[in-house]
Amino acid sequence: MSQKAVVLLSGGLDSTTVLAMAKDQGYETYALSFRYGQRHAVELEAARRVALAAGVQRHVVCDIDLRVFGGSALTAELDVPKHDATDELAENEIPITYVPARNTVFLSFALAYAEVVGSTDIFIGVSALDYSGYPDCRPEYIAAYEQMANLATRAGVEGQRLRIHTPLIELTKAQTVEVGTRLGVDYSLTSSCYDPDADGRPCGHCDSCLLRLKGFAEAGMKDPLRYQESGA
Amino acid sequence: MSQKAVVLLSGGLDSTTVLAMAKDQGYETYALSFRYGQRHAVELEAARRVALAAGVQRHVVCDIDLRVFGGSALTAELDVPKHDATDELAENEIPITYVPARNTVFLSFALAYAEVVGSTDIFIGVSALDYSGYPDCRPEYIAAYEQMANLATRAGVEGQRLRIHTPLIELTKAQTVEVGTRLGVDYSLTSSCYDPDADGRPCGHCDSCLLRLKGFAEAGMKDPLRYQESGA
Repeated sequence: MSQKAVVLLSGGLDSTTVLAMAKDQGYETYALSFRYGQRHAVELEAARRVALAAGVQRHVVCDIDLRVFGGSALTAELDVPKHDATDELAENEIPITYVPARNTVFLSFALAYAEVVGSTDIFIGVSALDYSGYPDCRPEYIAAYEQMANLATRAGVEGQRLRIHTPLIELTKAQTVEVGTRLGVDYSLTSSCYDPDADGRPCGHCDSCLLRLKGFAEAGMKDPLRYQESGA
Repeated sequence: MSQKAVVLLSGGLDSTTVLAMAKDQGYETYALSFRYGQRHAVELEAARRVALAAGVQRHVVCDIDLRVFGGSALTAELDVPKHDATDELAENEIPITYVPARNTVFLSFALAYAEVVGSTDIFIGVSALDYSGYPDCRPEYIAAYEQMANLATRAGVEGQRLRIHTPLIELTKAQTVEVGTRLGVDYSLTSSCYDPDADGRPCGHCDSCLLRLKGFAEAGMKDPLRYQESGA
């Protein structure tokens, strides 16, 4: 019997790649997504497509509402910042799209899910390189989370070792795309945009679209998504 | 201007006492409760009464659904275990009423709330003495959580120190009742029972009722709640 892994799955490029990597390592996968006051359902639709295509054992969507606290462009009514492709992405600056304590909240639900299905392996697609502005994407944060998690649960008390896997932590977006492509990921199923149109087509100008496009470009590949301005 | 504190408030004896202690220490208090698939709303009604009586700055109730994972008597359809008052409570055994990763999930929402209101102080009413069976009530767990939290958020990155306050961690239930009484807590507003009746009256026989009654008895006081069998 293969080991079980809980995989946080947003339906974006990173988490979709991580899901493929967990499967490639032989895990039976349990996907976990969140409906957390996003302004669009496009992300969740992508997560469902990806989970289905990957043949996960189970896909749970949790309703959580971080909007009750306010505080981020992704959950409140602020505008998502847009850039031209020639803009420099700000370094060492916490982006306005930061959701307070988001990865901590997400990992905590993953921990509950793992405990229930009897898994000691959680996969999350954080990258310290592409998202240096987010405190909760850093390796030292993940290490501290893992340590806490081993004290929080039955598994830890009973001597098992709970692990938070971050296979993308040192990868650039281009390297992520390369790994996923090697594992047969169909990136046309994914969604990365903070501000897609009614048909789910990405804007091509938000931070997330720019990082994604840069990744494909640096990998020497073409993003299979159709962007709003492509006229396609 | 006084400092802000986020206080996890279930509406039970412990969290109500902790709220009074936070206020007594001079904090402006932000209460946080959860609707997490409880089988009864009595607990949340108590939390609302307590928050109102304590004059908190704001009381947020978060909807989260731990039922999607299953795995506990408090959120699933299992029976809550009942005892006679003469039964010994099991030591060093994780109770069936354990909710997977509950305090980790609750603290993570508190962390998000704290970040949004600009607080670096979170209060939680865990006791290592009364709940030795729960891994996530131990001091070493809380210490690890605090360390993780300081790496997770803007506050930590910007050099502030985030603190998880556990003023009940070494107190018996009797000592908790004594502290709260000294601070003027009205325990008739609180609710501790895992299985109250339709009028919200506690059963007097679940683990939580037994601990509460034992606490009042050892403090030489009478619990102001009306129990189901009291005929009152």
